[in-house]
Amino acid sequence: MSQETMKALVYHEPGKISLDDVPVPKISAPTDVIVKVTLSTICGSDIHIYQGGLSDVKYPKILGHEFCGEIIELGTAVEDFKVGDRVAVSCLAYCGECFFCQEGFYAHCTEPTCGCFGVYAPEGCQAEFVRLPYAEKCMYKIPEGLTEEDVLFVGDILSTGYYGAERAMIQTGDVVVVVGAGPVGMCAMISAGLFGPSQIIAVDTNQSRLDVALKEGIADLALNPKDIDVIAKIKELTEGRGADRTIEAVGVSPTMDLAVGAVRSGGVVSTIGVFEKSFELHLERLWAMNIYLSMGFVPMNRVPQLIKLIEKGKINTNFLITHRAPLNDILKGYDIFGNKKDNCLKWLVTPYVR
Amino acid sequence: MSQETMKALVYHEPGKISLDDVPVPKISAPTDVIVKVTLSTICGSDIHIYQGGLSDVKYPKILGHEFCGEIIELGTAVEDFKVGDRVAVSCLAYCGECFFCQEGFYAHCTEPTCGCFGVYAPEGCQAEFVRLPYAEKCMYKIPEGLTEEDVLFVGDILSTGYYGAERAMIQTGDVVVVVGAGPVGMCAMISAGLFGPSQIIAVDTNQSRLDVALKEGIADLALNPKDIDVIAKIKELTEGRGADRTIEAVGVSPTMDLAVGAVRSGGVVSTIGVFEKSFELHLERLWAMNIYLSMGFVPMNRVPQLIKLIEKGKINTNFLITHRAPLNDILKGYDIFGNKKDNCLKWLVTPYVR
Amino acid sequence: MSQETMKALVYHEPGKISLDDVPVPKISAPTDVIVKVTLSTICGSDIHIYQGGLSDVKYPKILGHEFCGEIIELGTAVEDFKVGDRVAVSCLAYCGECFFCQEGFYAHCTEPTCGCFGVYAPEGCQAEFVRLPYAEKCMYKIPEGLTEEDVLFVGDILSTGYYGAERAMIQTGDVVVVVGAGPVGMCAMISAGLFGPSQIIAVDTNQSRLDVALKEGIADLALNPKDIDVIAKIKELTEGRGADRTIEAVGVSPTMDLAVGAVRSGGVVSTIGVFEKSFELHLERLWAMNIYLSMGFVPMNRVPQLIKLIEKGKINTNFLITHRAPLNDILKGYDIFGNKKDNCLKWLVTPYVR
Amino acid sequence: MSQETMKALVYHEPGKISLDDVPVPKISAPTDVIVKVTLSTICGSDIHIYQGGLSDVKYPKILGHEFCGEIIELGTAVEDFKVGDRVAVSCLAYCGECFFCQEGFYAHCTEPTCGCFGVYAPEGCQAEFVRLPYAEKCMYKIPEGLTEEDVLFVGDILSTGYYGAERAMIQTGDVVVVVGAGPVGMCAMISAGLFGPSQIIAVDTNQSRLDVALKEGIADLALNPKDIDVIAKIKELTEGRGADRTIEAVGVSPTMDLAVGAVRSGGVVSTIGVFEKSFELHLERLWAMNIYLSMGFVPMNRVPQLIKLIEKGKINTNFLITHRAPLNDILKGYDIFGNKKDNCLKWLVTPYVR
Repeated sequence: MSQETMKALVYHEPGKISLDDVPVPKISAPTDVIVKVTLSTICGSDIHIYQGGLSDVKYPKILGHEFCGEIIELGTAVEDFKVGDRVAVSCLAYCGECFFCQEGFYAHCTEPTCGCFGVYAPEGCQAEFVRLPYAEKCMYKIPEGLTEEDVLFVGDILSTGYYGAERAMIQTGDVVVVVGAGPVGMCAMISAGLFGPSQIIAVDTNQSRLDVALKEGIADLALNPKDIDVIAKIKELTEGRGADRTIEAVGVSPTMDLAVGAVRSGGVVSTIGVFEKSFELHLERLWAMNIYLSMGFVPMNRVPQLIKLIEKGKINTNFLITHRAPLNDILKGYDIFGNKKDNCLKWLVTPYVR
Repeated sequence: MSQETMKALVYHEPGKISLDDVPVPKISAPTDVIVKVTLSTICGSDIHIYQGGLSDVKYPKILGHEFCGEIIELGTAVEDFKVGDRVAVSCLAYCGECFFCQEGFYAHCTEPTCGCFGVYAPEGCQAEFVRLPYAEKCMYKIPEGLTEEDVLFVGDILSTGYYGAERAMIQTGDVVVVVGAGPVGMCAMISAGLFGPSQIIAVDTNQSRLDVALKEGIADLALNPKDIDVIAKIKELTEGRGADRTIEAVGVSPTMDLAVGAVRSGGVVSTIGVFEKSFELHLERLWAMNIYLSMGFVPMNRVPQLIKLIEKGKINTNFLITHRAPLNDILKGYDIFGNKKDNCLKWLVTPYVR
Repeated sequence: MSQETMKALVYHEPGKISLDDVPVPKISAPTDVIVKVTLSTICGSDIHIYQGGLSDVKYPKILGHEFCGEIIELGTAVEDFKVGDRVAVSCLAYCGECFFCQEGFYAHCTEPTCGCFGVYAPEGCQAEFVRLPYAEKCMYKIPEGLTEEDVLFVGDILSTGYYGAERAMIQTGDVVVVVGAGPVGMCAMISAGLFGPSQIIAVDTNQSRLDVALKEGIADLALNPKDIDVIAKIKELTEGRGADRTIEAVGVSPTMDLAVGAVRSGGVVSTIGVFEKSFELHLERLWAMNIYLSMGFVPMNRVPQLIKLIEKGKINTNFLITHRAPLNDILKGYDIFGNKKDNCLKWLVTPYVR
Repeated sequence: MSQETMKALVYHEPGKISLDDVPVPKISAPTDVIVKVTLSTICGSDIHIYQGGLSDVKYPKILGHEFCGEIIELGTAVEDFKVGDRVAVSCLAYCGECFFCQEGFYAHCTEPTCGCFGVYAPEGCQAEFVRLPYAEKCMYKIPEGLTEEDVLFVGDILSTGYYGAERAMIQTGDVVVVVGAGPVGMCAMISAGLFGPSQIIAVDTNQSRLDVALKEGIADLALNPKDIDVIAKIKELTEGRGADRTIEAVGVSPTMDLAVGAVRSGGVVSTIGVFEKSFELHLERLWAMNIYLSMGFVPMNRVPQLIKLIEKGKINTNFLITHRAPLNDILKGYDIFGNKKDNCLKWLVTPYVR
């Protein structure tokens, strides 16, 4: 590759990002791969970082972790891929061999070059090129007949939503409440539907998002706390008990209070929100309720299954894509997506146009 | 039965209990049974109630919920038991047919006459006689060859400890930390041992209790926060990760902080302590740790298995019995057990002596 | 009730059934209920019995075990139902308290008056009235807004199909093959769909049944062994591995061979067919394949969940109903359903017309 | 390494083995390692192969798959090991990345150089040196303080026994029967003990092996079919039901009949025996028993946990070692171990003495 520098969105300090010229990454280990980013996104956690909400993120750093790419260069130990392959990429780089990788918690990989791209790992995808360490682990060939848009979200928000549903330990016939109808919450609804619930109830104060969830058939009922006492309504719908499982997909106290308040005794609360503050858990009331509370960061260990479900038409996330623009316009994307303007659900970043 | 009144320990208001003469209970439904209490205990939750820590307990109330008895009278619908049978009794009365009973969460039975004896149910066992509603559900025949002392704790603390271990989802080879080496904590250690851990670590500030746990072989290692930085030591023992599972068996913030602080990413914290206050959960740190937190009140759904394990010699809880005295002396028992005097682990209440 | 005799389909010996006048059943225990049969069916196992295939079934016996009814008389211990209630009834009578009932295997209840109606229990439902022992266990109120036809199959074939799917331990994304597209097989397809598979493949030699499965959307693909080498095709569709799970819903060697031959290493074969003969299991080949084989007879322990799923529109079995006729015509039904004439899937028996 | 040839036990055809001079293996891929075999064994499956019972094993082939070694040469991609490291080795070579490896069924790895050493893989361990493909996957450092003998069996029979117990889905309090008290059966007893059973019953016709099982405390009861009707006795011990779980560890029809005949309805039969013939499964009786039958070949996915359990003193397999001799005497070992002479349980092969 002759190009020496590339465009990349760099986080300089809380509140400050810019589209800079930076060096193109190079292969540095035999298991590395360099991909040209063919499609990426702005994710909610990018906004958290930009605003300084995740104080342990170091800067300067290239942001971005949800993407597809085309392989342009391979390390010598990479056997099962070739230049030109189109791949969906996990938001996590991981070694596959440490204690946590063996347990399936790839997010906790202890290799220093690993972690979430654009957050803890050195590389980020809001750029023209990315180096992938232990690349065979985090790349998934895009099946014939599927586009980058079809599989884009398996690398982060769909896996996160799936994880929220999986950890909720849903039983067939359960009533499942998803608090938060943003992109992650909608992915949780889609995923919860895979476990045979009798009803999925979406909760959000943003009515247009609730309307999308109903229209797309991923929720059976939508409740807006602006209109109704949500906990009372859920209890009324469940013979006074509360929902069997609740999934919290926002990360603030009021939504967590809803998720904890709406669950029945013996139920499960599964949170996948990104929290910036502590939460007061009323154990003096909850100790007698036999509840599991799952706290979670996406482990990325079910991507092949999600791709298979997309391929066979059982899952479709394309309706989440409301905006597309080249990397050139990414600052505009941070404004529109970050401030939920223009009914934006997902802002897609296409390649830089020179 | 000719006797019209009986002795019973009555809770009159926070801080006030007395041994009173009260009417002997009578059969009031075809599924009722009256048992003569042959052995009971004072439990940690009795102390919580006495001190006013469980504000939703109504008074006056006969306290006590851990007991064995002998059947003296049967309702007309009771088929599988007869007068004279010796039974271990569950601390919970439950109907077996409502939604929660069907789910195995007997503690949440919705029948108004049900709930924990001496806490939410109308009846208590620190008395000469008890009426058991839906008696066939909560009575377990004591197998030939076992004494009341052998099986006494299946009705409460052993089931509670078991529940703490079960909800911890222990995998074979796990390192399990039990915070609190009181009777419930020790029952959690005994139970955790059933799931094939590589190591059970007991944590308590009471050294004599730690010594008992080691001597009885129910813990492999004991750590006293007075002597050592427990979290640091546990991380050192686990290659820096933390314990695979932690069980909290006390119910206060410092022990809960220990249980949450000592667990590894991807682990489980299982609390069976009786909390009187809320707890600050640092979700801003924990969201990325993929932890399950189980909050639990004993569901009492594994009693037959526990009795079988005792019968076959796999479990033995007799070492917990440090004190025995008749019902006449129960106020002394509240003082000694309640204030952890005299290395008291369990205070047993034998029948009233006239 | 003034009526002294009623019409009932009686099995007299292998090959001989007739519609006879028999005494109307009476309450004989406080937990009994008498229901007027408002709707019943002829089931595949009735045909097995009629033909003498289940040699342990005693005769004479009133056949029939899949039904709905209206309560006309209650035993004195029945609390939660009243005369006039419309109920779906489990095909199994069970006590709820014996070892097997506690384990959730109601089919193995050890009470002598229990077992499958019309097979091992004394009572059968191809009659005007039935006595239900331990009636509160086996009756389920039909929710407002649902008809008898909507919930009729929860009492047998839907629960059987569900059991086949549940025991197959389906993981999200799995390819599931159902061998046999009769009513039970179709119920297995419906149920398998609750567990998030990527693909359900129906296999049958009866093309019209395959066409129904595709048209109703309960299978994604249909394979007819008359047209194609089914095992080879399934391997081709799964990168040479075989299906993740296979469900056998017929009960003969060729279908079992298919189910065993089409599964991948590490997969599960779940049979819910009614076998009349032994099966040769090639353990010399299979020992290295790490397969679970589930053999099963419906335990009936998920009926409330199935009713909830029907109520919320997640499951619909009405398309299985191809024929309806009063009890007067039941012998014709045995001919048409038993010989798979007239594309009959389910023959419904409506009340006797005098 | 200057040595060009080495001694190795070569299988030439059914019934013919000899200790030959063969070339020392060399590194051929960057992920390879060469180990000097410091300790190995003769395993029951070696006898099956020698006698021609596993017809798909190709020859000539160096036999042997249970071993420890010392690393003498490393491929360039091996990062976490160094020359001189002492390692326990899995009997399976596997890539860790194919479909089956991702599922944890390492035995079904699809890489052509992988599979069970000395059976399907090109290499065997009854030799002086072995090449390990994808070596970082199949090697486990021997912890400080443990000897090769302590961990030798994790690489095959202990993992196999564990797998038999794990797939039996043992619940706490279960009665578990292990049919076959050979080395694999004893490893199954040890492993079953990790899951909290109330009783482990060993069954064998070899009384001396039963005596070992009782003496070592790995079984609670021993039944010899020569002395007693084993199935009748087990039913008597279980209130007529049968054992909750049975594990078959031999691989012939009579032991499989015992395992199937002794299990209760709703139970699990787990076979880890090496079968040479088919088995007649009486589905016409079994379909109504709700049994899971697990057929299994060791997947080797719990080795780190087993080593941890050995390290912490929870598991000890040293009593299985009855004979030790250098590679020079291995033909004698095939005779003594293969023909169960001299109460031989495990024959250990120490390095060749020149």
